[in-house]
Amino acid sequence: MKVAKFGGSSVADHAMLEQVASIIESDPDRKFIVVSAPGKRYDEDEKVTDLFIQLGEQFNSGQDYEVTLFKISQRFQAITDQLGLSDDIVARIENESRRLLRETTNTTHLTDGLKAMGEDSLARILSAYLNKRGTQATYVNPKDAGIIVNPEPGGAQILEKSYDEIHKLTERDGVVVIPGFFGYTETGVLTTFPRGGSDITGSIVAAGVQADLYENFTDVSSVYCVNPKIVNQPQEIHTLTYKEMRELSYAGFTVFHDEALIPAFQKNIPVCIKSTHDPDAEGTMIVASKEDLSQQVVGIASDEGFSSIYVRKYLMNREIGFGQRLLGILADMDISFEHAPSGIDDMSVIIRRDHIKGDKEERLKNRIKNELNADTVDVIHGLAMIMLVGEGMSERLHVASKATKAFADADVRINMINQGSSEVSMMFGIDENKVDQAVRSLYREFFLES
Amino acid sequence: MKVAKFGGSSVADHAMLEQVASIIESDPDRKFIVVSAPGKRYDEDEKVTDLFIQLGEQFNSGQDYEVTLFKISQRFQAITDQLGLSDDIVARIENESRRLLRETTNTTHLTDGLKAMGEDSLARILSAYLNKRGTQATYVNPKDAGIIVNPEPGGAQILEKSYDEIHKLTERDGVVVIPGFFGYTETGVLTTFPRGGSDITGSIVAAGVQADLYENFTDVSSVYCVNPKIVNQPQEIHTLTYKEMRELSYAGFTVFHDEALIPAFQKNIPVCIKSTHDPDAEGTMIVASKEDLSQQVVGIASDEGFSSIYVRKYLMNREIGFGQRLLGILADMDISFEHAPSGIDDMSVIIRRDHIKGDKEERLKNRIKNELNADTVDVIHGLAMIMLVGEGMSERLHVASKATKAFADADVRINMINQGSSEVSMMFGIDENKVDQAVRSLYREFFLES
Repeated sequence: MKVAKFGGSSVADHAMLEQVASIIESDPDRKFIVVSAPGKRYDEDEKVTDLFIQLGEQFNSGQDYEVTLFKISQRFQAITDQLGLSDDIVARIENESRRLLRETTNTTHLTDGLKAMGEDSLARILSAYLNKRGTQATYVNPKDAGIIVNPEPGGAQILEKSYDEIHKLTERDGVVVIPGFFGYTETGVLTTFPRGGSDITGSIVAAGVQADLYENFTDVSSVYCVNPKIVNQPQEIHTLTYKEMRELSYAGFTVFHDEALIPAFQKNIPVCIKSTHDPDAEGTMIVASKEDLSQQVVGIASDEGFSSIYVRKYLMNREIGFGQRLLGILADMDISFEHAPSGIDDMSVIIRRDHIKGDKEERLKNRIKNELNADTVDVIHGLAMIMLVGEGMSERLHVASKATKAFADADVRINMINQGSSEVSMMFGIDENKVDQAVRSLYREFFLES
Repeated sequence: MKVAKFGGSSVADHAMLEQVASIIESDPDRKFIVVSAPGKRYDEDEKVTDLFIQLGEQFNSGQDYEVTLFKISQRFQAITDQLGLSDDIVARIENESRRLLRETTNTTHLTDGLKAMGEDSLARILSAYLNKRGTQATYVNPKDAGIIVNPEPGGAQILEKSYDEIHKLTERDGVVVIPGFFGYTETGVLTTFPRGGSDITGSIVAAGVQADLYENFTDVSSVYCVNPKIVNQPQEIHTLTYKEMRELSYAGFTVFHDEALIPAFQKNIPVCIKSTHDPDAEGTMIVASKEDLSQQVVGIASDEGFSSIYVRKYLMNREIGFGQRLLGILADMDISFEHAPSGIDDMSVIIRRDHIKGDKEERLKNRIKNELNADTVDVIHGLAMIMLVGEGMSERLHVASKATKAFADADVRINMINQGSSEVSMMFGIDENKVDQAVRSLYREFFLES
């Protein structure tokens, strides 16, 4: 029994939906289907959800919104026409949208209601289309599916008691089609999930029905071991553990937001990333653990926009509580820190640059200087972090040696090395301008020369 | 104008004192001499200061102390006899000791008074001996020299106003001989310095008289680049900066306690480590800065007895203030931390093992677990730290690469790398049992193959 989630690009037009239907029909285990709203068909295209958001904004600011509503209807009409479905679905979208605009008095509830219309309508269309093809399918609203969330519009979190409700879906016959991206509060208010919302729904449903596999269909056939914008046609990752996935996703690496997978991870459901265009390709499996640890490094992630706060104070190492007070100032100013390498008389704290925007940087420096009597406080911008990830890393001797050689080969100076807490990753801080050459050199070292 | 300090082994017997006298006479710039108490003449020998401490303990516990006092007198008598000095000095030691035991009511003052007798007596002997040889010399008591300290027995710290007083010593003719290891409080109580006490006096006098050089005579001819107990006859370090010295001394590296040199460092007085046995050898210069940075690594230090506290909590990186609260628990329990490498969901804190003796380890674990809701808290013992130090390191690309290769070559797994705060050092955490093989491999890599 599998849960298959299809992303926005996988349901962007009628042709993609035909492909989705045949993917569903090709494997009788694909019983629970979660869908996004139609995404872009081409680069300049608009996503349906963005149109719905625009509709709400125009309504709220008293602008004319008829053109937008017409665009939305046209978009769905094109799909239903080509799939040979009745006009009722499109008529319902228009009527339901007008009803929401008219009846919803709470602005955030209106926004959430409109944002969810794309997913909801697409789920109805796919269900109808499957039935038309002779595959028994039922549209199930998240409320009926048992997806109960806390009342935080745009940031919903699933309530634990939902899972028992969701499990009852297994009693239904045929294919169950559920719109992604939203749930309902205990008082029945539609509330959307944060970013990666459809992935979250898929993950929740997989956890609830205790699926054997959660298939996440997207527009790439697998996860690459390195950013394909930096390395041309890099190797694909066949198997990734949850832990590796989470470490990699830290540095803006993955095809989806890793926290979306938490519900599935917690119930130990394996996840497979697959391409809608190439459903027979192996894809990338994300599993709890793997036996073959022969590959030291499975992925290289990189991210920019970091800054380092360097603090020097003579005899710092004698002063119990210095580190704590330094991090305390950061916490007090609501700045989360990434790493804090320390010397004998100095300590650096690595943070994301956007956490000290405007005059916050100066205020931070002054507080550190005055409250800790620091001799020196410097803030250095333009740092990038490069992360090597692999569960096989911990047992191998040569990872650090190969990695540092790769940086030296690429003429990249290492400003910071952070290794020692996570057994599955090693992190390097370098100049932002040198990320590409460093990543290419690391890729050569770990993926091409072995 | 130079300040020369002679350590305990340099003044252990009459032959060494003859050598010291000729070293002083060979350079008219050696005007201020600071001496320790006589140290061991052979492995099983007793240090004079240890005898004085024993004397005080016997007196305080009501035991017979006459044998100890006799041993002390004999030790000095042997020196004065051989140097042809009058018996008055030895008689004074015995009388003064008895007077202290009789008149000092405060036990800590008595301990300090007795502990200082070795240095004080030796300074009187050296001064008399120099005069006998025809070299004008004066014994100057630390009180008369202006060495004024705060009232912390065994842990005295110099008061800033002392320096102006000490500077007046430059007005004196001939050689000035000052006993090391103690000063006087503002109310006139003799108070000893912490460990490395004679080095501290030398450093203070050098700072006060604005010496051109502070010569620290000891029994090694220079500082080695690596522990000679691990590597046979390692290379000598010719020049070391203060910063390098301080980083190296962190890991139990140096021939003396680095903080003893702080007074000299603060007044920018260069320091030279020399051997009394081989005074013409170059020795090791410790300076504020050096121009030649071609040598990447000047020294390798290693120290054992570290433990790592590993804390894991899912979504830790989202929790602002987690690191601060973790370090806060340590500070609250009076545990100073050395390093804190962090991952995404985990953080390790490296501490010295002896900071969590007895049930403190369990209490610490429980507090972290309960107060921070950590998923996992593990304490791992048996860690050693290896430190590479060199001001030339920061500009070079290959240091990390060469170092990690050396560990791999020696089959030593790196548990932790801490680089990024200090520009002049790089630290590695490894298994305590692998220190020797790792250090030897690093020595080969950085000192033999270049």
